[in-house]
Amino acid sequence: MKGLAFLGKGQYGVVERERPKIELPSDAIVKMTKTTICGTHLPTPDGLDTDQSLGTDLHIIHGQITTVAEGRILGHEGVGVITEVGSAVKAFKPGDKVIVTGIIPCGTCHFCKRGTYGHCTTGGWVIGNSVDGTHGEYVRVPYADTGLNRVSEKVDDVGSVMIADVLPTALECGVLSGKVQPGSTVAIVGAGPVGLGVVLTAHLYSPMRIIVIDMDENRLRLATQMGATHVVVSGPETVKAVMDITGGAGVDTVVEAVGLPAAFDMCQKIVGVGGTIANIGIHGSTIDLDMGRLWNKNITITTRLVDTVTIPQLIKLVEAGKIDARPLVTHTYKFADIVRAYSEFDAAAKNKVLKSIIEFD
Amino acid sequence: MKGLAFLGKGQYGVVERERPKIELPSDAIVKMTKTTICGTHLPTPDGLDTDQSLGTDLHIIHGQITTVAEGRILGHEGVGVITEVGSAVKAFKPGDKVIVTGIIPCGTCHFCKRGTYGHCTTGGWVIGNSVDGTHGEYVRVPYADTGLNRVSEKVDDVGSVMIADVLPTALECGVLSGKVQPGSTVAIVGAGPVGLGVVLTAHLYSPMRIIVIDMDENRLRLATQMGATHVVVSGPETVKAVMDITGGAGVDTVVEAVGLPAAFDMCQKIVGVGGTIANIGIHGSTIDLDMGRLWNKNITITTRLVDTVTIPQLIKLVEAGKIDARPLVTHTYKFADIVRAYSEFDAAAKNKVLKSIIEFD
Amino acid sequence: MKGLAFLGKGQYGVVERERPKIELPSDAIVKMTKTTICGTHLPTPDGLDTDQSLGTDLHIIHGQITTVAEGRILGHEGVGVITEVGSAVKAFKPGDKVIVTGIIPCGTCHFCKRGTYGHCTTGGWVIGNSVDGTHGEYVRVPYADTGLNRVSEKVDDVGSVMIADVLPTALECGVLSGKVQPGSTVAIVGAGPVGLGVVLTAHLYSPMRIIVIDMDENRLRLATQMGATHVVVSGPETVKAVMDITGGAGVDTVVEAVGLPAAFDMCQKIVGVGGTIANIGIHGSTIDLDMGRLWNKNITITTRLVDTVTIPQLIKLVEAGKIDARPLVTHTYKFADIVRAYSEFDAAAKNKVLKSIIEFD
Amino acid sequence: MKGLAFLGKGQYGVVERERPKIELPSDAIVKMTKTTICGTHLPTPDGLDTDQSLGTDLHIIHGQITTVAEGRILGHEGVGVITEVGSAVKAFKPGDKVIVTGIIPCGTCHFCKRGTYGHCTTGGWVIGNSVDGTHGEYVRVPYADTGLNRVSEKVDDVGSVMIADVLPTALECGVLSGKVQPGSTVAIVGAGPVGLGVVLTAHLYSPMRIIVIDMDENRLRLATQMGATHVVVSGPETVKAVMDITGGAGVDTVVEAVGLPAAFDMCQKIVGVGGTIANIGIHGSTIDLDMGRLWNKNITITTRLVDTVTIPQLIKLVEAGKIDARPLVTHTYKFADIVRAYSEFDAAAKNKVLKSIIEFD
Repeated sequence: MKGLAFLGKGQYGVVERERPKIELPSDAIVKMTKTTICGTHLPTPDGLDTDQSLGTDLHIIHGQITTVAEGRILGHEGVGVITEVGSAVKAFKPGDKVIVTGIIPCGTCHFCKRGTYGHCTTGGWVIGNSVDGTHGEYVRVPYADTGLNRVSEKVDDVGSVMIADVLPTALECGVLSGKVQPGSTVAIVGAGPVGLGVVLTAHLYSPMRIIVIDMDENRLRLATQMGATHVVVSGPETVKAVMDITGGAGVDTVVEAVGLPAAFDMCQKIVGVGGTIANIGIHGSTIDLDMGRLWNKNITITTRLVDTVTIPQLIKLVEAGKIDARPLVTHTYKFADIVRAYSEFDAAAKNKVLKSIIEFD
Repeated sequence: MKGLAFLGKGQYGVVERERPKIELPSDAIVKMTKTTICGTHLPTPDGLDTDQSLGTDLHIIHGQITTVAEGRILGHEGVGVITEVGSAVKAFKPGDKVIVTGIIPCGTCHFCKRGTYGHCTTGGWVIGNSVDGTHGEYVRVPYADTGLNRVSEKVDDVGSVMIADVLPTALECGVLSGKVQPGSTVAIVGAGPVGLGVVLTAHLYSPMRIIVIDMDENRLRLATQMGATHVVVSGPETVKAVMDITGGAGVDTVVEAVGLPAAFDMCQKIVGVGGTIANIGIHGSTIDLDMGRLWNKNITITTRLVDTVTIPQLIKLVEAGKIDARPLVTHTYKFADIVRAYSEFDAAAKNKVLKSIIEFD
Repeated sequence: MKGLAFLGKGQYGVVERERPKIELPSDAIVKMTKTTICGTHLPTPDGLDTDQSLGTDLHIIHGQITTVAEGRILGHEGVGVITEVGSAVKAFKPGDKVIVTGIIPCGTCHFCKRGTYGHCTTGGWVIGNSVDGTHGEYVRVPYADTGLNRVSEKVDDVGSVMIADVLPTALECGVLSGKVQPGSTVAIVGAGPVGLGVVLTAHLYSPMRIIVIDMDENRLRLATQMGATHVVVSGPETVKAVMDITGGAGVDTVVEAVGLPAAFDMCQKIVGVGGTIANIGIHGSTIDLDMGRLWNKNITITTRLVDTVTIPQLIKLVEAGKIDARPLVTHTYKFADIVRAYSEFDAAAKNKVLKSIIEFD
Repeated sequence: MKGLAFLGKGQYGVVERERPKIELPSDAIVKMTKTTICGTHLPTPDGLDTDQSLGTDLHIIHGQITTVAEGRILGHEGVGVITEVGSAVKAFKPGDKVIVTGIIPCGTCHFCKRGTYGHCTTGGWVIGNSVDGTHGEYVRVPYADTGLNRVSEKVDDVGSVMIADVLPTALECGVLSGKVQPGSTVAIVGAGPVGLGVVLTAHLYSPMRIIVIDMDENRLRLATQMGATHVVVSGPETVKAVMDITGGAGVDTVVEAVGLPAAFDMCQKIVGVGGTIANIGIHGSTIDLDMGRLWNKNITITTRLVDTVTIPQLIKLVEAGKIDARPLVTHTYKFADIVRAYSEFDAAAKNKVLKSIIEFD
């Protein structure tokens, strides 16, 4: 089979490989149908030494995620069809159409029992990291019973690919950690795929205002189409603009969807008394937290990984038409063109790329 | 009447004043019986320019809390007896024995309706800040109906004084914000009166371990007496010591009860995956937040003021013997000796002072 | 001035009265602009001896709410303009346009401090019960600072009248007590004004399905217009119909918006494992709770009064267009015709009345 | 091997059997060390037709739990040592000392993902119900990775047996569902093993008062020893006694630990405004719920099964000395005397039995 592999810092290409085989009784093999290049972020033990905000797959290519070995097939989101299951797999069988995500929970450790699958002691971020990923034609999925989700007949493939990673990241790390509430005001710093996913999923809780801040006017236009009530071009007047919108009170929830000190700084300047800063961005360095001003402001700051525990809920919401993430998809490629898909995604804003769908034959 | 007043940076002394009078229909006048010098922290609009951890009263003396005018009588905790009430006061009458605290809620603004009295738009920290405080023989208490609490017959005066400020600060900003749970592990950085108050109130939720970290061995000894399961002398081996105690997992809750960058840094080094850093300390500067390491660790950081909303609950808990804060009291003075009480408290660790009770005639 | 008064069991009519005066420093006098007849329910110390589901005003007329004295002017929802305030009122002044609701909190007692205004020890349901109500041209409102809410310039009068009672009842007692969640399934038994208010406010939390059950096809048609995803005509096949809709699982939240044993029985038959029955209906008798079947099904049953604490939040939601309750209004009358408004409302389903607006001159 | 089996309604005895074998890759075989006879309750699809409160094992013997086949070896709590594991078991190996409980979660279905193991679609109550139980010398445990918990070296065997069923039932269905809080008042109706377990675990949240109600003075004496602050002999004066203790307010939490209409009726008479009735008892019939009085009292009623999700937390709490359940054990038998243990437990109050430990050779 073929797959797109990381070939050392700054290098990648399509390689030929043996098809993966069942290694453990709890494994499943999935033949991929559609995948996408990550616009979100997954964990690394060492953090990052970058100051740029990219999707995880590109962070790997840039050599910034040191857990990923040379030769690893990348990708950790997509849909496919099961071709084989191990002897211990009970919930799935060959022929089942499934969503493949990067986070694989054992279901047994104390982190999994609390629903924090991202920190599973033997699983966690596995696919496209310690095991070859969804940018190959076939994928071996460990802990298949707990790690896979069945594709809904009422959701098309592109919708299902969005449920694999970008929507749960937006919902779990942004909206739920940020405690978005009916009538509240939400600001989102960064209108990349995840930031726009926060726009889409924040609506589930009916905030009064959704303010999106970015430098890219194209992305702000998309934010408005997806339901942002206000957009602000980031610059020296941004804080004033947000304060004007909120009558001086600041925002209830602000989501950091960039991963840079300047973005976090914006968050701490616009959060109101009693508000929450929900960080999604991957940070590669310390940031200056203005405790001299915030210590008495009843602020909550949250960091977290996606756990993908909301995938079953998201499937129902997409089925019911409460979320439609398909407008996030700007480009579609054949798998044969995956190298071009990567290179265009590497200059995503310039190429007006949000999410790219890659179709297998 | 007499009161201890702030007389400009570094200066204080006993002054003679007119007794306060009812100014608004919602006021009450209280003749003080017992008070104490603050070992906790109250809000200022501008934060602080200090890097030392003191109680609020001393921060004022040191000229670090710029909201407090010269001539202000200090003090924001104590018990006394009502001598007069305004025409709109319904819940109290002359002769009622009450707890006086610094935070006065109007009960009407949107912050008060949410229980965040500390941010009341017309009240908040009033006593000993914008209105003369409890280190005078009589105090005018605005919004008496919502701001005062009746002293329980089952709690002695010293116990009631502890309910005025140190216990609600410990419970609200430390234990509740820190989400202490049965079986969890709590660390407390700083064994001053508030840090020890966190030891006392953390027990309400039955944590498995309470680890107290401080430089002062006397205070660590007291921490053990109050129920700490482990004490650690702070130093280069502190992080290792906490990791050893927790089997490498780090702590579930860590309370910053100092207000210095080094103390916060300790907190972020010992918090475990999924844990909470509950900040109580007054910070006067930015701190370095290690987002490069914490961004994916599911950490919650909280800041807040005391709201004193838990005072009714604390009264019941002290009545029931669930908390006994009297061991926090190390020194007792007559009001005539209040200047000495201040000077000894200004070198609290050296003089082995935690909380000083000052008795009026 | 004139007002519609309860004149003994089964009797009511317009009476002439002295205009109310300020009696306590915390009072305000409001000249009414618009009011409505209750389609929801307010507390009585003794419950009810009825087995019919009416609004509170009609329950009074029918002699079933024994706290209400003969001669009392009825009505506990509406908008008006303040003409006079007592000396202790700080948040409002003459000329302010306000929402008047039935529940008046003192803001001081332990129930008010917890936000359970409906059980305020000296307030609670006052207007149109122990004090003359909004069906008179002028109303005296006790505890004006805590009891009144300013009308938003962005919400028209009819919208504001809906915020006085029907929407907070639906949101607090139905949606919040029922823990409606994104992707969940909600059933509402009873499509009167409150039941339809639950349809409108359930949308704030993006449930996957909203199933409305009633006997009246006109009301079910309205339910569909307001966003119900499924409607079921109540009858012997109702349980089967709901089970078919939910794939046999039953519903996550069921709201009892009738107040009759048969309606509650429907609720307990269609609630799924782990679900919640949120009761809003006023019950006048015991009901048979099928604990032999429910004891192990992880069911939560809630009862409660409206507290009207969500009014500030509802104002923002109506401003933002997240809720539009105006379609609940089916009839409009001049105050001169209030007797006819009552008589038509007394046969509400037959006359296709939901909410009637009564306009003062 | 030998085991005590249900032999048809009213009949039981020790039978000879083949040792269980691994049937599925996720199974483990456990050689039992100590077990106990149930004083709590486990689910049946059909409820019960009884009006007596017994432990589940005795309900089976009495023919009231129709899911249990004749010949089934009973028992669903205990400790033992693993002798064999299936090929898919990763968390355990032969020689591991484990706690065996009745509830076995698959870890994969939507109920398990939410932590409601008791409703697992392929597991749930398995041991001693659909699979031979812990009153046999060896037990086959399905889903061993998710269903077993390792015995702590710091907890003795008797303590571990209490963690298998009685403590999680008390904590989950009583204390957590009942929302016991620091300073609140808890009443427990029924001082059997589970009711007394509620006394022990309620202390984790530091309530101000724990009131225990029972007919048996011996059990009330034990309740006092375990930390009840008040005991009340049930009778015509019980409601008055509880109201006197609570100053007329009623209780915040009341736990029904009996399973009879009269016990539930007591609960609804003593619960205060805003309180919770947490039902643990197995009910075999409908009860009269006094909605005519409760509809406006902000009451929450909860029903649920034990899920045993708190076992890891309980292990830590017993390790830390926060709970000592050993005083619940009144009798100890050799396995050879298990028939006598059953017969004495069948008249538990008369024989002053709470929990009996049965020791295997």
